[in-house]
Formats: sequence, structure tokens, C-alpha cells
Amino acid sequence: MKTRVARPRSRATKTLLLTTAAALAVVALLSPTASAASGDESPVHGLAPFVLLSIALVLLVAKLGGELFVKLGQPAVLGELVGGILLGSLSLFGVAWVEELRADAVVAALAEIGVIILLFEVGLESNLGEMKAVGWSSLLVATLGVVAPFFLGWGVAAYFLPDEPTLGHVFIGATLCATSVGITARVLRDIGKLQTREASIILGAAVIDDVMGLLILAVVAGAIRAAGEGGALALIDVALIALKSIAFLVGAILVGRYVVPHLFRGAARMQSRGVLVSSAVAFCFLLAWAAGAVGLAPIVGAFAAGLVLDEIHFEEFVVRGEQRVSELLAPVSALLVPIFFVLMGLKVDLRAFARVEILGFAAVLTFVAILGKQVCSLGVVGRGVKRLAVGLGMIPRGEVGLIFAGIGATLWLPGANGARVPVVDAATFGAVVIMVLVTTLVTPPALKWAMKEKG
Amino acid sequence: MKTRVARPRSRATKTLLLTTAAALAVVALLSPTASAASGDESPVHGLAPFVLLSIALVLLVAKLGGELFVKLGQPAVLGELVGGILLGSLSLFGVAWVEELRADAVVAALAEIGVIILLFEVGLESNLGEMKAVGWSSLLVATLGVVAPFFLGWGVAAYFLPDEPTLGHVFIGATLCATSVGITARVLRDIGKLQTREASIILGAAVIDDVMGLLILAVVAGAIRAAGEGGALALIDVALIALKSIAFLVGAILVGRYVVPHLFRGAARMQSRGVLVSSAVAFCFLLAWAAGAVGLAPIVGAFAAGLVLDEIHFEEFVVRGEQRVSELLAPVSALLVPIFFVLMGLKVDLRAFARVEILGFAAVLTFVAILGKQVCSLGVVGRGVKRLAVGLGMIPRGEVGLIFAGIGATLWLPGANGARVPVVDAATFGAVVIMVLVTTLVTPPALKWAMKEKG
Repeated sequence: MKTRVARPRSRATKTLLLTTAAALAVVALLSPTASAASGDESPVHGLAPFVLLSIALVLLVAKLGGELFVKLGQPAVLGELVGGILLGSLSLFGVAWVEELRADAVVAALAEIGVIILLFEVGLESNLGEMKAVGWSSLLVATLGVVAPFFLGWGVAAYFLPDEPTLGHVFIGATLCATSVGITARVLRDIGKLQTREASIILGAAVIDDVMGLLILAVVAGAIRAAGEGGALALIDVALIALKSIAFLVGAILVGRYVVPHLFRGAARMQSRGVLVSSAVAFCFLLAWAAGAVGLAPIVGAFAAGLVLDEIHFEEFVVRGEQRVSELLAPVSALLVPIFFVLMGLKVDLRAFARVEILGFAAVLTFVAILGKQVCSLGVVGRGVKRLAVGLGMIPRGEVGLIFAGIGATLWLPGANGARVPVVDAATFGAVVIMVLVTTLVTPPALKWAMKEKG
Repeated sequence: MKTRVARPRSRATKTLLLTTAAALAVVALLSPTASAASGDESPVHGLAPFVLLSIALVLLVAKLGGELFVKLGQPAVLGELVGGILLGSLSLFGVAWVEELRADAVVAALAEIGVIILLFEVGLESNLGEMKAVGWSSLLVATLGVVAPFFLGWGVAAYFLPDEPTLGHVFIGATLCATSVGITARVLRDIGKLQTREASIILGAAVIDDVMGLLILAVVAGAIRAAGEGGALALIDVALIALKSIAFLVGAILVGRYVVPHLFRGAARMQSRGVLVSSAVAFCFLLAWAAGAVGLAPIVGAFAAGLVLDEIHFEEFVVRGEQRVSELLAPVSALLVPIFFVLMGLKVDLRAFARVEILGFAAVLTFVAILGKQVCSLGVVGRGVKRLAVGLGMIPRGEVGLIFAGIGATLWLPGANGARVPVVDAATFGAVVIMVLVTTLVTPPALKWAMKEKG
């Protein structure tokens, strides 16, 4: 009996210690002295110690939230998002730090770099050969799964937000387009079904709809910027933006085929430390910058960079025993990506949910997000494939939907009375976050169930 | 013969391609259109595409410079520094991008975070047990090697810069204190002498003089800030700052012994991805912030965090097949640390070297930096140890000297006519960079030679 009692007691001691440490941290955080001290300019080139504290706390919130959701059998990203929402709700109780965190340029930049690294990773996981191999089913599934939610989302937004300009409605439609391939891939791997026909179709379609989603984003965002500058938007402009996006992707693919192999063969001759990860990230950032320079979102460039880099380019690094790029990027993204999701959660204003019409909008938006992707199953060519599973596997929106909503929050449209109206305001942002949370939460159980059923 | 001709031709093609790509990049960079486009606000939360381009180019410069120096048998860090100096010299030709890069807050923040990660890594490599084991020789060597260059540097600064306040002279003395353990360790490993008595003494002493150097920095920087606020500096204040620094280190060690094991045992129970690297970095940033909050440089906290974290704390992670913290940090530091060194190089104003007195100052500063560390050899206890090798092994200043100079560039003192005088101005900064370059360049050959001689 004694040892049995001893265990909980030692755990209680630990818990006490941890709680004390946490309490001290919170007190330090909230005390005006510490706040004043952390507001001081740092002795080192002006990096505010505030930023260090913020990153540390954001990482802790992200990992605790992520862990809780993983324990519940959910993706970690949801926990990070919910952790951010809870952290953000502290501002309702007058915690000034939360407002400072929301406004900090350095933390925001780190989050942005995190998203760029994330899309680079998604691009690295996809490859062009695979996309060709899965063929017509994936292309049809992806097209239907992009078109249906896009128009459904547009319609819902037009119904619920009649005062917003049409381009705002179109933008909300765009946030529903892209499936988050990561969540579905993880569920399929967990249940050992990654090698099935359904898995190939879903993953291929998810890659294609990423590309389509990014194209739609480029066109809609371009149109919104043109409208924001007061210029009327002709169909020719839309066509021009679409053409530019396609030209960029084709250009990136050509660079990938004819320039990248030489670059990385040259880099492989280098002996200094960290050449591989530096070259890969430099390449990613260059394409992200180039995308920005031609008027696209930097994430389009990052995704393209990942898409055109194949492991074959790093052969010589791997031969001499170095890690793969994806392995080297893992700790970098483990540090930066959660900052993005916690910040996205921070942006959610819980007060918006006190309004019934916002909750209604969120519910209907979520419903059409799920419904829209069920149209996918019509695109499956051939027999013996579990169509329901394909439709369900395309549901989760995750990071891409959030990234789109985040971009929308930085775009403006001319309003009715000449004022600038944000394309995605706090209420709409909250509704999109709810859509992302719900679509991501329902997928794992639904997909597991559908894959067990007979086709 | 044909195949022989073919090879150079294929190489020539590659070179041509690469040169064309580089030329295009440079043209894009310098052309006013691209510059205007890159100055645009990004569609994503305002992360300027300029930052992405800058990081990519800084990484490329760092890796090319580093590689060149590695090929010449020199440490990569020197190449990064020289690459930065050359990049900075472009501003003499009116390249506006360089000035923008110098002024960019996000890039500066990334460099600072890089230094914090670097000092964390240095701390991780050192450990308290080792410091106790090498005993008196290391302690004596370290003390002499800190005291002698400190006073020599102070004296030289007082002679060459008579107009500057005394605290400025003291600060320059402080930049000469800390040996860069990394460079010496690498040379000793390269020549297979890492297991010798000399190596233990040097590495132990280098760790101790890191701690002493950071203490001196804390005291001098504290004194300068007090003087900057107009307050007279009493001896009691100096004692107080010293006490605070020591209390911080002791506190960190206690946290390391009694809190950290529980924290990481808790973290080891977590199943989500990236827990280890996130917890380690969060811990490092918390201590860096805490150091800042009590008035010390954040790097002191980062070093302390590394010092108290031992691989034993990560046992459970390693058991289940995860990488070690130092391995996980490697790609993170490979991306961030070069940004710091290139930025340090960028700060060097080559025009300062047109003035003979600055070159003279740099030469004498370098001379006393080398001479000061030769006093070390007197501290070696016992016989059969190559005293000369110990003295030579302590010469390189590397990152710590640069970090100190960088901090000095952000500190101000009240000048003679009431104006604010930077503690380390452009000319002095250039002299310190020359000192760092030369001490780091002479060490590898000198140390190799001394270790081959008989004791």
C-alpha cells in the first residue's frame, strides 16, 4: 500500500512545483513592473525581450493544446488553434499582453515565415509524377470538390452578409476550396489504408485542389486589390491574373527541371555545415518573393518551390549520410508553424459569437463546406471504390482555409459609403475558424467508419 | 580525349546557367521596378516580400562565403563575416537594398534569435560536471585569460580614443575577454587531439571565460546604462549588478536541478510532434527573457539555459528514437546564425579603414588580444603540458567578441558636450571585427604547429 500512496504523492509534488512555476510566470507576466521591464528596449539591437517571452508562451500553449487534442485522437493543429482562442479570450479580462502579442510585427513575421515553410513542406510531400499517375479520378474529384464548395460558400455569404460587396462573398467561397491533405493523410496512415485506391485518389485530388485553391486565391485577391484601387474589374483582368498564376507555376516547374538539379549538384559539393537546409530554404524564399513580385501570394511560390524540389535532387547529400530536407525542416516547422495557428486562434473574437446571426452563418458555412465536398464522390471513375470515403476524406479544411481567411483579413474593399471594408472581418473570421474546426473534427471518425464499410 | 573535352563543356554550361541566374537575380534586385514591387506590402499580414528576398540572399552569401573559407581550411563563420562585409560595401556603390537590409527590424530580430540559439547551443555543449572536473588549471587559465586582455584592451582603447569616456574604454576591454570555444574545439578535433590534457584545459577554460565574459558584459553594460541615465555610478551599483548576475546563474542552476527534470519528464509523456525542440527552445527563451527582465543580456539567459539542460533530461526522448536536442537545433541554427554574422559584416563601414589611426588601433587591439591570452599559459598547473598550445588555443574570439561589439553599438554614453556618444562607433566596430578576423585566422595554423611540438 505504501508504494501506491507514494506514487501519487510524488506526482502531487511535481504538479505542485509545475503549478507554482506556472503561477509565478503568470504573476510575472501580469505584474506592471515585469510588463514595464519587458517593454524596455533590449540591450541587444532592440529585440524586445517581450518577443522572447511571447514566443516561449505561444509555444507552450501550442504544445499543451496540441497534446490535449492528440490525446483525444484529434489533430494537434486543432489544439493549437483552440489554445490560441483561449489565450485570446484573456484579452476580455484585460490582459494587455494579448493585445501586444496581436500587434507585434516580429511575432507576426515569424508566423508568416512558418506558413511559408509549411506550404513548402506540403509542396515537398506532393510531386508532379504522382499527380499524373492518379489520373482522371483525382482531377475530376478535385475539380468538383473545388467548384461546388466555392459556389455554395459564395451563395451562403451573399445570403448572410447582403451588405458586403460581391467580391467579399466570392472570397469566402474561395476559403472553402482547398482540402487539408495532412489531416486526411494522417488518418489514413493511422488506420493502415494509405496504400488503397481511395487513398491515392484523395491524396492526388487534395494536391490538385491545393493548386486550384491557390489559383482561385490569386485571382480573387488580385481582383480585390484592383477593386480596392478603385479600378473597375474587367473580365480581361481576371483572365490576366489567372494567366500570370499559371505562367508562374509553369515557370517554377521549368526552373525545377532545368536549373534546380544544377544548383543542388553544386551545393552538394560544398563541405560547410547546413548547406542543404540553407539552400532549400533560400530557394523556397526566392520563389515566395518572386510570387509576391508578380502579384501572387508568397505561399504560392513556397508551394511551387516544394513541388519542383524532389528528393532526387538531394541524392548526393543523402549518399554522404545527411538527413533529408523534410527531416531537416521538421524542427524548423515545429517551432514556427504553431506560432501561426496560435495567432490565428488569437484573432478570433469570442464576443462575435454572442450574436446569433454569426453562429447561424458559421453553422450554414460549415454545412455547405461538408456538403460541397460530397459532390466529389461523383468524380470517381471506375467501380469498386468507396465513393463515400472519398467524399468524406476531402472534408477537412485545416491550414489552407485559415491561411486564406488570414489573407482576407488584410484585404480591403471600398464600402457603400466610401469607407474601406475588410474582406474578412472579425465575425466572418470567427465563422471560418468554426468551419475549419468542425470540418477537421468530423473527418477522422467519419473516414474511419467509411473505410471499414464495404464499397 | 572527347570525354575529357565534354566534361569541362558540361561544367561550362552549368556555370553559364548559374551565372545567368545570378545576373538575373542581381538585375531584378537593382531594377527600380522590382525594388518598388518588393517594397509593396505583402498580401499576407504585411510580411514584406523584401524580407523573404533578403533572407534568401543573406543565406546564399553566408553559404558561399562560408564554403570558400572552409575550402581554405578556415572556419565558416569568417566567410560569413567577410561575405557580409563585401555585401555591405555594395552600399558604397549606391545599392539601396543594403541600407534597407541594415535597417530592417524583422531581419535584425531573426539575427538576434539566431544569437540566442547559438549561445543556447554553446551552453548545451558545456556542462557543469566537466567544468568541475578540469579543475584548477582551467580556472586559473580562464581567470588570467580574462583579466589580462581586459586591462590591455582598456589601456589600448584609452590611448587611441582619448576623447571617449572611460566606460567606453572598459567596454572595449570586455570585448577581448571571451574565447570562442567552437573554433579551437574544431581544430583540436580535426587534428585528433581532442582527448589530450591540453584540450581539456582549453575547453574547460573557454567555458569558464564565457561565463566570466558574460558577467563582465553584464556589469559594464549595466554601468553604461546607469551612466546613460545620468546617474553617477557608485562601486555599490557595480557590486549589485555583479551580484544580480551571479544570483541569476545560481538561480538558473537550481531551476536546472530541481525543476527542469520534472518538466522534461512531463514533456516526454507527450505524443505530439516536435515537443522536444519546442520545449527546449521555450525554456531557452524564458530564461533569455528572465535575464533581460533582471537587466542582463538575453544571451546570458540562453547560455544558462543550455548549461543547465543536460542530455540526461532528454533520455526518454532518445530512448523512443527521437533525435537529440543538439541535432534538432542544428538546422534551426544553420538558418538563423549565418544571418547574424552576415549582418555583423554588413555593419562594417569600409570607409573607416581609409583612416590610418583606425588601422593602427585595430592592429594594436589585435596584438594585445593575442598577447593577453598568452598570459594564460602561466595558469597551467602541473608538468608535461604544452603551455604554449594552451595559450594559443585561447586566442580566437569569434562570435562572443562580435556579439559584445554588437551590443556596444546599441549602448550610449553622455559625451563631453552633452551629446550621446555610441559606446562602440563604426570605427571601433570595424577594429573589433578586424581583431575577431585575425585572432580566428591565426589560431588553426598556430595551434596545429604547437600541438605537434614536444611539450
